[in-house]
Amino acid sequence: MFRNLYFKATTLCLALLIIATSGRAQNADSIMIRKIYDEALDKGHAYRNLEYLCKKIGPRLSGSAGAQKSVEWTKKLMEDYGFDTVYLQEVMVPHWERGVKETAFILDGNNKITVPVAALGSSIATPQKGITAQVIEVRSLDELKNLGENTVKGKIVFFNRPFNPKPIETFDAYRGAVDQRGQGAIEAAKLGAVAVIVRSMTHALDDYPHTGGMRYADNVTKIPAAAISTNGAELLSRKLKESKAGSVQFYLKQDCRTLPDALSYNVIGEMRGSSDPEEIISVGGHLDSWDLAEGAHDDGTGVMQSVEVLRIFKSMNYKPKRTLRAVMFMNEENGLRGGLKYAELAKAGNEKHIAAIESDAGGFTPRGFSVDSSKDALAGMSQNWLPLLKPYLIEDIKAGGGGADIGPLRNAAPGVTLIGYRPDSQRYFDIHHASNDVFENVNRRELELGAAAMAALTYLIDQKGL
Amino acid sequence: MFRNLYFKATTLCLALLIIATSGRAQNADSIMIRKIYDEALDKGHAYRNLEYLCKKIGPRLSGSAGAQKSVEWTKKLMEDYGFDTVYLQEVMVPHWERGVKETAFILDGNNKITVPVAALGSSIATPQKGITAQVIEVRSLDELKNLGENTVKGKIVFFNRPFNPKPIETFDAYRGAVDQRGQGAIEAAKLGAVAVIVRSMTHALDDYPHTGGMRYADNVTKIPAAAISTNGAELLSRKLKESKAGSVQFYLKQDCRTLPDALSYNVIGEMRGSSDPEEIISVGGHLDSWDLAEGAHDDGTGVMQSVEVLRIFKSMNYKPKRTLRAVMFMNEENGLRGGLKYAELAKAGNEKHIAAIESDAGGFTPRGFSVDSSKDALAGMSQNWLPLLKPYLIEDIKAGGGGADIGPLRNAAPGVTLIGYRPDSQRYFDIHHASNDVFENVNRRELELGAAAMAALTYLIDQKGL
Repeated sequence: MFRNLYFKATTLCLALLIIATSGRAQNADSIMIRKIYDEALDKGHAYRNLEYLCKKIGPRLSGSAGAQKSVEWTKKLMEDYGFDTVYLQEVMVPHWERGVKETAFILDGNNKITVPVAALGSSIATPQKGITAQVIEVRSLDELKNLGENTVKGKIVFFNRPFNPKPIETFDAYRGAVDQRGQGAIEAAKLGAVAVIVRSMTHALDDYPHTGGMRYADNVTKIPAAAISTNGAELLSRKLKESKAGSVQFYLKQDCRTLPDALSYNVIGEMRGSSDPEEIISVGGHLDSWDLAEGAHDDGTGVMQSVEVLRIFKSMNYKPKRTLRAVMFMNEENGLRGGLKYAELAKAGNEKHIAAIESDAGGFTPRGFSVDSSKDALAGMSQNWLPLLKPYLIEDIKAGGGGADIGPLRNAAPGVTLIGYRPDSQRYFDIHHASNDVFENVNRRELELGAAAMAALTYLIDQKGL
Repeated sequence: MFRNLYFKATTLCLALLIIATSGRAQNADSIMIRKIYDEALDKGHAYRNLEYLCKKIGPRLSGSAGAQKSVEWTKKLMEDYGFDTVYLQEVMVPHWERGVKETAFILDGNNKITVPVAALGSSIATPQKGITAQVIEVRSLDELKNLGENTVKGKIVFFNRPFNPKPIETFDAYRGAVDQRGQGAIEAAKLGAVAVIVRSMTHALDDYPHTGGMRYADNVTKIPAAAISTNGAELLSRKLKESKAGSVQFYLKQDCRTLPDALSYNVIGEMRGSSDPEEIISVGGHLDSWDLAEGAHDDGTGVMQSVEVLRIFKSMNYKPKRTLRAVMFMNEENGLRGGLKYAELAKAGNEKHIAAIESDAGGFTPRGFSVDSSKDALAGMSQNWLPLLKPYLIEDIKAGGGGADIGPLRNAAPGVTLIGYRPDSQRYFDIHHASNDVFENVNRRELELGAAAMAALTYLIDQKGL
């Protein structure tokens, strides 16, 4: 009886102790996370750093002088912050240049209406005098294939399937339309087309052409490819409907070219782990951007948030257990060479990557994280950590992709958990790959909340593992 | 035994039936909600209506020609949509005018530095030649009181406590700073000050003065009150610190005046309930705006979303059980007379208000709803309806205020549930009451998602009651 009572009392005490300890741990975590947010919101550097990257350096397409400047500046920035190690990873990247600004107009009888276009990345130029041809409008690759060579030969193919406005996440609309941009030139060339123009990848009706990557295929003729603004696409489509068959022509002139691959770099800053330095947690974004604007949301915000994560810890005098890395990947936009190189070196060095966090969906207000894990990390993260992050607008931690640059790590570093920082997506395609992706369109607090969210998650992974 | 078995079987069947029926009901609701969103996102009118309100009508301060035009236009808009009843509620409103644009500069020795200011709403003018005086900077009403009359008399009091960047919800920062704007002139005048200038109510460092309401008190001298841009406030504060004591003066000239109260209107559109027409569910925002800009987010988005809720139902041929009302309140900004009148008439008419939904926190991406209920509606809404709204970025339904305009209904219509539509708050104070609150700063999809969220909640309340 006494033994039993003793046993029960001990069990009870133990249970209470566990609850109390776990409560204390939760409490200590929530205090630490609050401190992270205070630092980011009250004394953050992300916004001013982003301003420098956008306004003093500007466009950073792979192989450009801007890209090289951004490498040198972010390296110096992290050195000045006093991170333990700052280094470069050499990587050869594609080097494409837009050249002289494009010209395009709709020729409707004697009427010549200029429309905003931009060559797609990797496209070839037109002949110097430009291309003038009739236009075939299609809504899909399948529709094009069904038209056949007789109809398409010698013409400019105009891909005009708009974004579907119905999906709530705008990336779903992007995925539903981007085959036109990526694959359009190949399929059109197979049928003898002389060029393609592609409706810009955005919900918005505006005058910005949105560039972006496109592909050619071996053994298929390369033809010039350009994005047209959505307003331009609407106008062209209307002209094609209103005018006599065959009377509308389109003129396109672009000057772009691909140079030999150029030497560039991933830029990496590290805080070395105190107890488990061989275990690596990375936060990253891509340093390169398209050439039309400042690459503010794509992906200046992601790289400056990544540097900010380490700066926050440094300013708080936090000593991580594991090694924390801020990684600025080169060449996400037109090659992914930086991401591939990082994974290759991680594998060659037999590095133990616990988690890789990527921010490449814009610097907008936080929504959550998406997790791609070979282990069963998701349930635990959602159950144990989400309550700590909910007060900070992190509404879910759910299954999903980590991001393009960290994707190659999945095979290169088995066991790694890939995590995408997921901000609100509504405004992203308003500015994606277009000349309005500028610093002025970034809200300071939204940017800082993202950096703090990434830091808070990094802290939890560092403390608890995955 | 048999009876018992029969009973158990019956109970089991009944339980299964309830689960199945409830499953079917949930499913029908989720289909209906998806249709609401499809209509709003694919065929919505809110964005084009907002463009008209902002660009063709513009500023709509109570008593102004713009306010009157907005009354006439929204009435016609709802009539053209074919709502069952569209009518006006007469209400006398304050009529304050800014007059000639303000002038202000810092006088630092021989240096004259112009800074952006805007008279606060309801303020009196300065004398025609303006006011020139030394400046006393304070961070709080308490700090001012402690200075005492000897220090303050004859001077301009400069309230310069910034927004606290640490709260995640920006409205918390606003609430923490706005006493300076509302009460500052009273407390300063008590100590003999000649005017007050108040740091603009925003996190952002920029050049926009943000106006807003302020009060005078009976038996306290009225002194002119103006908002100064945050950059202007930082500059003035620096000059005061750097310069010899007493050498910095400030010059303020403003021309504003209060005219006799003017006749204006709340504008109301109704769809009559089919089975319970006496039970009213309202959705609303305020039609008036400050005079400095287009009142896009404050509160053009709220009124156009409210009209859109009824238009969506009309376009879907949905026959509400209860009576649905879109209410455009007049004079939220400087008097709340429209909200008070609406409640007064609801009480006089013994109207049975089930729920009132208000959208007056900007047309930003959705976060949730806040609920102020005398009944125990909140738990049920959160438990039963939140799962239906989660796919649409509604992350919570939680306790909180409904909004200024519907506030007076609480006593006037006992049992009403007051509900605030809660968009993301990060960008709101960038544009609040300032000249950059324009149509261009509204994102189409964010606006539409808000309208759809309000319609979805209205549908659920209409179907299930509260």
